[in-house]
Amino acid sequence: MLNLDTVQDAAARLDGVAHRTPVITSHTLDEVCGARIFLKCENFQRIGAFKFRGAYNVISRLSPAELERGVVAWSSGNHAQAVSLAARMMGSTATIIMPSDAPEAKVAATRGYGADVQFYDRVADDREAMGAALAESRGLTVIPPYEHYGIMAGQGTAALELLQEVGELDELRVPIGGGGLMAGSATAATVLHPDIRMIGVEPAAGDDTKRSLEAGERVRIAVPDTIADGQGAETPGELTFGVNRRLVRAVDLVTDDQLLQAMAFAFDRLKIVLEPSGATGLASVMFGLRPEPAAMVGVILSGGNVGLQRFRELMARAGASFA
Amino acid sequence: MLNLDTVQDAAARLDGVAHRTPVITSHTLDEVCGARIFLKCENFQRIGAFKFRGAYNVISRLSPAELERGVVAWSSGNHAQAVSLAARMMGSTATIIMPSDAPEAKVAATRGYGADVQFYDRVADDREAMGAALAESRGLTVIPPYEHYGIMAGQGTAALELLQEVGELDELRVPIGGGGLMAGSATAATVLHPDIRMIGVEPAAGDDTKRSLEAGERVRIAVPDTIADGQGAETPGELTFGVNRRLVRAVDLVTDDQLLQAMAFAFDRLKIVLEPSGATGLASVMFGLRPEPAAMVGVILSGGNVGLQRFRELMARAGASFA
Repeated sequence: MLNLDTVQDAAARLDGVAHRTPVITSHTLDEVCGARIFLKCENFQRIGAFKFRGAYNVISRLSPAELERGVVAWSSGNHAQAVSLAARMMGSTATIIMPSDAPEAKVAATRGYGADVQFYDRVADDREAMGAALAESRGLTVIPPYEHYGIMAGQGTAALELLQEVGELDELRVPIGGGGLMAGSATAATVLHPDIRMIGVEPAAGDDTKRSLEAGERVRIAVPDTIADGQGAETPGELTFGVNRRLVRAVDLVTDDQLLQAMAFAFDRLKIVLEPSGATGLASVMFGLRPEPAAMVGVILSGGNVGLQRFRELMARAGASFA
Repeated sequence: MLNLDTVQDAAARLDGVAHRTPVITSHTLDEVCGARIFLKCENFQRIGAFKFRGAYNVISRLSPAELERGVVAWSSGNHAQAVSLAARMMGSTATIIMPSDAPEAKVAATRGYGADVQFYDRVADDREAMGAALAESRGLTVIPPYEHYGIMAGQGTAALELLQEVGELDELRVPIGGGGLMAGSATAATVLHPDIRMIGVEPAAGDDTKRSLEAGERVRIAVPDTIADGQGAETPGELTFGVNRRLVRAVDLVTDDQLLQAMAFAFDRLKIVLEPSGATGLASVMFGLRPEPAAMVGVILSGGNVGLQRFRELMARAGASFA
């Protein structure tokens, strides 16, 4: 089940465990956008991204026997750290299956939380099959990145907190990878404020949810070539899409260049660090609001795990315009 | 006059005008330090540094005739932006005297607020004489960076907010340049919590206040060679030192290399951008707490105006250890 009650239940479970992340505003950004923008800083969340919310919500409800056997997860990065930390906090152990090209900062951080990291090839291997085999042979509980109503409910607490702090919003912009953050956020937000417009944001090269919404069914795209490594899904989740097709008004696309500009703006003007996927919502408001009038726009900044070295490389790639 | 009342009066004046900046915590940092650390993020303040508080507190109290004639200030950067923005908000105009080697980001931002920028040579020229001459010839009101009780009272609102949010602290770490932020913070904090230890932090090369406290009188040092450009004072202010000699328990020193490591930690783990001077308090807790036990330590992160290009240069200088 996923509804306002389960999101509120997750919020109670996360109270005092997750950070209640700040909402930041900027006069400069408001002038750029022609609207009041409220940035929910999940880059300040534990493990540096919203993913901790869902992982802890699910793992904290496992039985003592399940915790004793351990958990397994596959992830391009932030979910890996989230599961590792939540497992450690609950006295359990995590096995994490990561793509072999995952950013080094994320691999190191995951290991830092005590997890056993195993790699797969993003193109050649089937990570779900690997995970299922491990779960079967060792009795591990699979913690999926988004295809789980408990995960979605946990992620939705970010939107819940934002609305509690700001009150009414005309729009809420939410990055979509697998769709869990959006599904939880949209579920909570549209019950509390039925008129709110839920706008998803995807990298232009990873527009599987936008295409799927337009087609009315889940569409599969090629492995996306984008710097937004947290949004590399080839197709929406079945459960998440079932929610998002009902509640998401539209999906905006942002290019890698726009993401780099948003990351640079965040650094220079907001003084915050965003990873590429964490900057999609910011890029979407910086480079054009939607045709409908929107005086008050919420944006979930989903994560900040870019790492100093990769940030320097990305900004160098972006060239002299950000110097 | 500088006392708790004048700091609270400044807080009322700044309410709804300045950002009430968030206080951030980090389990990782707490583990590094062996204490609970509360980071007051003045890098998120308007113009990117605490300086807005003092400037607005003073300029908003000028008479209509004074506002009509305009204000003048000299500054290594953040005070310049603060005076420019506060003047614009009050319908006045600002003339800013800046060192010719001020970071380009700070010059551009100051001009962006509509100020008339005039340069001086940090070694050869006397900026105070330049400012006084301009004030005399054009009838401008001088807004000093720290030698003014209204400036100090404004800066002290940062500590006031931190204590309101966190409650009791064993220590409060405050960067010292001219000493205005410390004087205002110490005045408010020591009345509210008489047992609190006020610890100043200076760059090792710019230890004028530490030496002055040890000598019992204001000492002048050579122009400091440090990346902490906001703490380039050669001697403490007369008014600020009068306050700080009574209320500051000790001053800790941090090296430029420690500042770079603190800036990198802030980027990688806290996901926030700090300029070198803004990182002095963080560096001081990362590289060793004081002998006295301190369970709860507040740190004022004073600013984040480093600029993307200079940040990249500084991190490159820091070398492969931060890669």
